[in-house]
Amino acid sequence: MLNVHLVPHTHDDVGWLKTVDQYFYGDRNDIQHAGVQYILDSVVDQLLKNPDRRFIYVETAFFYRWWKRQSSGEQQTVKQLVNEGRLEFVNGGWCMSDEATTHYSAVVDQMTMGLRFLNETFGPCGRPRVAWHIDPFGHAREHASMFAQMGYDGFFFGRLDYQDRTRRMLAQEQELLWRASDSLAPPMADLFTGILPNGYNPPEGFCWDQSCDDPPIRDDPDLEDYNVDDVVMRFLAIAKSQATVYKTNHIIMTMGSDFQYENANLWYKNLDKLIRYVNARQGNGSRVNVVYSTPSCYLQELHRANLTWALKTDDFFPYADSAHDFWTGYFTSRPALKRYERVSNSHLQTCNQLEVLGGPVSRNGPFGEGNSQTMKKAMAVAQHHDAVSGTEKQHVANDYARRLADGWRHCQVLVSNSLAALTGSSAKRIYCDNLNISVCPLTESSKKFSVSVYNPLARPVTWPVRLPVNGTAYTVSDAKGQPVDCQVVPVSRATREVRKNRGFAINELVFQVQAPPLGFSTYSVSLLQDGPPPAAATKHRAPTAIQNKFLRVTFDPDTGLLSSLSNLETGQSISLTQNFYWYNASDGNNSESDQPSGAYIFRPNSSTPFVISQRAKTETVQNSVVQEVRQWFAPWVSQVVRLYSDSRALELEWTVGPLPIDDSLGKEVITRLDTSIKTCEMFYTDSNGREVLQRKKDFRPTWNLKQSEPIAGNYYPINSRAFIKLHRRLLYDDVRGVAEPLNETSAIFPEGLVVRGRLLLSLERPPAAADAHRPLAQEAVLQPLLTFVDGGLSPDTRLEFSGLQAALPPAVHLLTLTQWDGDSVLLRLEHQFQSRESRVNSQPVTVNLQKLFSTLEVIGVSEMNLSANQWKDEMIRFAWTPQTDSEAPPPKASGDASSTWEVTLRPMEIRTFLLRVALR
Amino acid sequence: MLNVHLVPHTHDDVGWLKTVDQYFYGDRNDIQHAGVQYILDSVVDQLLKNPDRRFIYVETAFFYRWWKRQSSGEQQTVKQLVNEGRLEFVNGGWCMSDEATTHYSAVVDQMTMGLRFLNETFGPCGRPRVAWHIDPFGHAREHASMFAQMGYDGFFFGRLDYQDRTRRMLAQEQELLWRASDSLAPPMADLFTGILPNGYNPPEGFCWDQSCDDPPIRDDPDLEDYNVDDVVMRFLAIAKSQATVYKTNHIIMTMGSDFQYENANLWYKNLDKLIRYVNARQGNGSRVNVVYSTPSCYLQELHRANLTWALKTDDFFPYADSAHDFWTGYFTSRPALKRYERVSNSHLQTCNQLEVLGGPVSRNGPFGEGNSQTMKKAMAVAQHHDAVSGTEKQHVANDYARRLADGWRHCQVLVSNSLAALTGSSAKRIYCDNLNISVCPLTESSKKFSVSVYNPLARPVTWPVRLPVNGTAYTVSDAKGQPVDCQVVPVSRATREVRKNRGFAINELVFQVQAPPLGFSTYSVSLLQDGPPPAAATKHRAPTAIQNKFLRVTFDPDTGLLSSLSNLETGQSISLTQNFYWYNASDGNNSESDQPSGAYIFRPNSSTPFVISQRAKTETVQNSVVQEVRQWFAPWVSQVVRLYSDSRALELEWTVGPLPIDDSLGKEVITRLDTSIKTCEMFYTDSNGREVLQRKKDFRPTWNLKQSEPIAGNYYPINSRAFIKLHRRLLYDDVRGVAEPLNETSAIFPEGLVVRGRLLLSLERPPAAADAHRPLAQEAVLQPLLTFVDGGLSPDTRLEFSGLQAALPPAVHLLTLTQWDGDSVLLRLEHQFQSRESRVNSQPVTVNLQKLFSTLEVIGVSEMNLSANQWKDEMIRFAWTPQTDSEAPPPKASGDASSTWEVTLRPMEIRTFLLRVALR
Repeated sequence: MLNVHLVPHTHDDVGWLKTVDQYFYGDRNDIQHAGVQYILDSVVDQLLKNPDRRFIYVETAFFYRWWKRQSSGEQQTVKQLVNEGRLEFVNGGWCMSDEATTHYSAVVDQMTMGLRFLNETFGPCGRPRVAWHIDPFGHAREHASMFAQMGYDGFFFGRLDYQDRTRRMLAQEQELLWRASDSLAPPMADLFTGILPNGYNPPEGFCWDQSCDDPPIRDDPDLEDYNVDDVVMRFLAIAKSQATVYKTNHIIMTMGSDFQYENANLWYKNLDKLIRYVNARQGNGSRVNVVYSTPSCYLQELHRANLTWALKTDDFFPYADSAHDFWTGYFTSRPALKRYERVSNSHLQTCNQLEVLGGPVSRNGPFGEGNSQTMKKAMAVAQHHDAVSGTEKQHVANDYARRLADGWRHCQVLVSNSLAALTGSSAKRIYCDNLNISVCPLTESSKKFSVSVYNPLARPVTWPVRLPVNGTAYTVSDAKGQPVDCQVVPVSRATREVRKNRGFAINELVFQVQAPPLGFSTYSVSLLQDGPPPAAATKHRAPTAIQNKFLRVTFDPDTGLLSSLSNLETGQSISLTQNFYWYNASDGNNSESDQPSGAYIFRPNSSTPFVISQRAKTETVQNSVVQEVRQWFAPWVSQVVRLYSDSRALELEWTVGPLPIDDSLGKEVITRLDTSIKTCEMFYTDSNGREVLQRKKDFRPTWNLKQSEPIAGNYYPINSRAFIKLHRRLLYDDVRGVAEPLNETSAIFPEGLVVRGRLLLSLERPPAAADAHRPLAQEAVLQPLLTFVDGGLSPDTRLEFSGLQAALPPAVHLLTLTQWDGDSVLLRLEHQFQSRESRVNSQPVTVNLQKLFSTLEVIGVSEMNLSANQWKDEMIRFAWTPQTDSEAPPPKASGDASSTWEVTLRPMEIRTFLLRVALR
Repeated sequence: MLNVHLVPHTHDDVGWLKTVDQYFYGDRNDIQHAGVQYILDSVVDQLLKNPDRRFIYVETAFFYRWWKRQSSGEQQTVKQLVNEGRLEFVNGGWCMSDEATTHYSAVVDQMTMGLRFLNETFGPCGRPRVAWHIDPFGHAREHASMFAQMGYDGFFFGRLDYQDRTRRMLAQEQELLWRASDSLAPPMADLFTGILPNGYNPPEGFCWDQSCDDPPIRDDPDLEDYNVDDVVMRFLAIAKSQATVYKTNHIIMTMGSDFQYENANLWYKNLDKLIRYVNARQGNGSRVNVVYSTPSCYLQELHRANLTWALKTDDFFPYADSAHDFWTGYFTSRPALKRYERVSNSHLQTCNQLEVLGGPVSRNGPFGEGNSQTMKKAMAVAQHHDAVSGTEKQHVANDYARRLADGWRHCQVLVSNSLAALTGSSAKRIYCDNLNISVCPLTESSKKFSVSVYNPLARPVTWPVRLPVNGTAYTVSDAKGQPVDCQVVPVSRATREVRKNRGFAINELVFQVQAPPLGFSTYSVSLLQDGPPPAAATKHRAPTAIQNKFLRVTFDPDTGLLSSLSNLETGQSISLTQNFYWYNASDGNNSESDQPSGAYIFRPNSSTPFVISQRAKTETVQNSVVQEVRQWFAPWVSQVVRLYSDSRALELEWTVGPLPIDDSLGKEVITRLDTSIKTCEMFYTDSNGREVLQRKKDFRPTWNLKQSEPIAGNYYPINSRAFIKLHRRLLYDDVRGVAEPLNETSAIFPEGLVVRGRLLLSLERPPAAADAHRPLAQEAVLQPLLTFVDGGLSPDTRLEFSGLQAALPPAVHLLTLTQWDGDSVLLRLEHQFQSRESRVNSQPVTVNLQKLFSTLEVIGVSEMNLSANQWKDEMIRFAWTPQTDSEAPPPKASGDASSTWEVTLRPMEIRTFLLRVALR
């Protein structure tokens, strides 16, 4: 018997063409007809009508909002449906996150938030067994690894490269075992993965949603247009054809799509009939059996089949749905939103930590009521695959940003309260969120102020600080009252242009600060001189070199471009040229394909980019704190090549925009590094900011690639290494639904958005490279939070604080520290090195939890799965056998520390603990 | 307190853009999203959720289909909802009939069918108290009269002339008492009539259907876009404004529209909130109270108000929704469908009568199973205001025609069975449905055949018969074997062209036949001569006159056009010119308005029509049976002016089409009669084929007309008198939803439809005119049915039969005779004259029911209301007081015959009886 699992489902984007609020309520149906409140209303009603019916729900961001508006009677009904398996949660995160442009730390957070709600509301029956990423545009190995560690039994998705799909269909490898980590011992990061047959849509002709036009089953024999026989024959043909490209006698059909089931009766009424009429054929010898099902029921049947499955160790990037349609544009679409999401994550982690460290007064203290919840939700929503991905409409992008800003506003109150408790001073704290464009009204005008630097990392860190000022000389002293070397440099032309009239600083005060682990240090700043800018701070001549004790960087005196980079410690030296270029975005008028570049798709109309300028005009700033070469390429492209006195990384801070479109050409701007390194066409990119994957030009590890887009087909999502696209301005929609060209403007930038970003370059010998880039990346991701207090501080103010008893070992990253409930906090510790990437750091390391915090006593500890919705020791997953495993490694005990308090971390391992704590 | 009655409703067209089947199942949602099965599913579910909720349902054609697919448990639930008044039926006919282009007999039938189903299913609680014609495009007085006689307490509609509405709003006369008959004693035809505030839509901004885009009520105070205050304020403003144009402190709002409530949750969830939040304001002094309601609850409040109401005695035609948008085009749109509907009604009445007269064997006899039910339903559906009106899409018009053809196929079996029983012969009966284009394979080829003529009228009638033949001489004998005068005339050129290759007759055999009341007579036809056509049957010269013993008609020898008409009995003579013209249909490019002519709208772009030809080419046929002048105006316009030897009416049979569109001009063809009659711009048109209303050019009886369309603004729906538009071919849609130009073609007429019609002219002195036109109209509406038997008849075949003991008096029309159930039949007798229109016939007349039928014994009789869903003596209606009644007439007992069996009919009265009968 061929068993067909019909899976009724809805795919509810947590924002896309409409905002998440609009989707929930069904507002602005003129943009897109979609109202999630009604979907849930309707599905529950329809499930009650027939106990055979099933439904799965995915996005907890929506479910949570709906739930809290239900009466307790209605809630009881839903619990019953969940307990009986009629309503099943799959995935269950706050949203279905993007896989290319998200950072693992925010993904873990959003999954935790969604799964926690389900766990607390429904208990074990509400715990999703299946991860479900039917829509994201390519699939990251790190996501698979995280899902495995969250305890999912399997994973289903809909989108993969069309060549890959064809091969897998022929080989019956659409279901496979994904080994998602090079470091974690199998099966820790093994995830059974299924590719759905029709994306996430129903088979053609079988869509019975109100949004579809397929013919309903007309089974009144009195009517002219009775069509039962036709429907049954078409269905049987489709089922049999589908069975040929899957391995077992169980197949799945996704019966639903975007925002479907708003009127679930249409679907269920016709599905009831379909099941009845198809199964009735069994009386005439049909060997097809159709049932309502769920992904977990289907998965269980696959597991029962007890087969071996193809093993996969790479990832599913880039995603192309046909020869000229590479979904690699969104890796960099809306760079401003992408940056804001990353900064917000940093803010949120700080907010979480200070909520724990400051105690309950953080939430309700001298500055009023604050919370981290608003920011948590805003960040969770921003992980959605049409949020940080940049593939939403402009008004929706604005809404995500607004939510983050709102979240940060609530966090600021919390942070102020917490710092008041920790410093013993209720002096008003001022936040300057626009330091990246040298705007901060306080520092621009104040003659005396202090700045507290909070360090969210578990080890002491030194950062440069740049404050917009109008004076020409300042003194800075640290928490111990010691003077700090500081310099005043003029604000660059690019910054003056980009900030417009939002700020008026003529100079920046630059100095290095240091802050203890999970703690702060306070610096005092006083104006010395309020006169004209210091003479000769900048020099208008072509520089030949800048250097500090670690690096030397040379420039071509003719072009003003970079010419070489040397590591003075290791003696390595490479030639290095860097310049800016743009690809002309395809407008769709092309003999090969009418696909234009858009929010999703990157498609240059030529493989050769245009150079923006062969040479840069330059200025040089050199002083004891920083050395800068300021390069000016065009009115819309400039860069600062910057070397701080004690930095091991060269900073390239670029400012690009507004991209000119007077020529009616869409532009994809790139920065390109040409080096003398022999790469053999190999390069490396991270997966969600964590493990690193090897890439090879025009190559895929699992199939024989027929490359049809030599540029777009070699783009991968990255946080580090290789060349990176910067900013995009496109004049055509790429016909993937968003229906807007990606042509960003704003009230402040009506002529087109200007974005600024930083590239940090380090040059190391491979065996030691990770020792540099791992901490460097964490410093970039979790930035210090600066808070300001005007005037002098009262003498009893505590100027320095650390939440830890001691810094954690270099291999250990404190991923999460957040309040869980009254007396418990959630802690995640992470080994931030891969196996074999560092001689020093790729070793197991042990931490004692009782000796962790300086102000908190740890009373109890329980280990949980990664998403904190299950005790670790209760997490039992299906075992799957790969086809090609040379030898299955011995299953490994996960904990194996010598005491409850001693926690050992192996490379790339994340361990999650619920701690009961008390303030010491 | 201002009470706002919210009336949730759906308006479900019984065919329009989609067929009735497609609408029911929700098929072809690509054309229009609509699925009635789901509406009823959803509404029932939602009504159960809150006992305050109300819903009304209107179209029984849909409800009946839905009902029979429900389980008995579901049916019980619905009965409960009906009993509790939560689900209320309004109108309740099979459809919501068109008011301009329907014949009263078919409207009474369709209402009876729908109301009977409700009555038998739900009993008194299912009986609609309110008539509800929210969509028809103008309102006929005869409809109001019928509704009154069906026992409705009130009537609501949405469309009326925009000038009329404005005046009524200012005068608070949007609710009024309509006195809908000049003949029937008040309050017999009095109907309280309410004009709805927003057509049948919700107030602007308050449409919460899935098909609408208005903002839902967002009442989660945590959200950015909480909008409860805004919604409440907008609602209060609208309610208060609406109250100023109505008389009482109760106002109604229709919360629904076309095919809405497919997902009723959207509506009800928001309406629940609206009611809650608006009424909550009462705590702050608001004087507005909102409730779920129904039209009958609203009507009850109006009745309780005990006010007097403006009296209206004319009708609501023509309907204009703005200055250049007169909905007078549909009076003649799709003339071929309109004719087919009328012929089908005649067939159905014959079928009904023969079902009764033939007994049970009619339904299951020698020719198999036949029924009248299929035709009844097809006719009921065809009364819909987008069916016979001609305002549906082409494919839907085809579907209506297909249904009628299917109905007729089932009736033919019944008729054959019945005639077999009545004649005692089972010889096969042949039907020739295409005699109007001289096609009948039997008569074209047979040397000997018989033709039975069934007369559905209750008095003996004489008709001319024209049979296509290929012989040149025939003998015809009547039922008594007496020879009948017959003549062979050549088939006209127009007929040969229009029939194309569907028939090959070269001649027509013409003779007069007579048949007894509700009976048949059989004529035998034998070929005498099979040679060339008789010489000189037609003369190619300009005729000067044709005449019979009643009429003389002269022609202008220069033009070939009619020049005069004389009544030889009365000595009246008038000059009379007749010719064909066309108006150029507006294409919408016009400085005054962009309204084009279309299926609904008639809008010539000039008031002067183009003449098709100043002169006609003519041929003359003259013999002892008929005299014809055949006029040829253009390749697409011809006419036969015809006078049968014993006819008092002159027949103008026109054939028009294909209308040429090579010039890209839409054409509205008219026939125009120019006479010497002094009319003072007065003319008369019937209402649904029954009572006659006086019209005056550029005048409306109830308001000061500002005429903006001098042609279209003077068109009224008619069956007789004045000039009549013939055929339309339009190249633009008129933007009223149908989204197709009315440009009819077919497989047979790819170049454009050809239609043929007849105009019957009589010239009489006014006091005697009704004595001629009343029976003449009935003869045109109820035509004899011809059935043919090939070869000779067996000698024991009964050749003549009457179902009546005697003909009914001339004033009495037998409107309905149809099987009701096992042993009972429904009978309607009608006085077919108005008061004062005939000295002879406008008198009460009495019929004895026991002496009615020749073969049926009447065992019992019960009088019912017009729609046969209530005993007449239980029909108690609300009493309403008109403002301006000079003196209220004394209420009149309705029966007042001397015995149960004696039935007295007063002018224009219809009386409905359920008879228990037995075959004698």
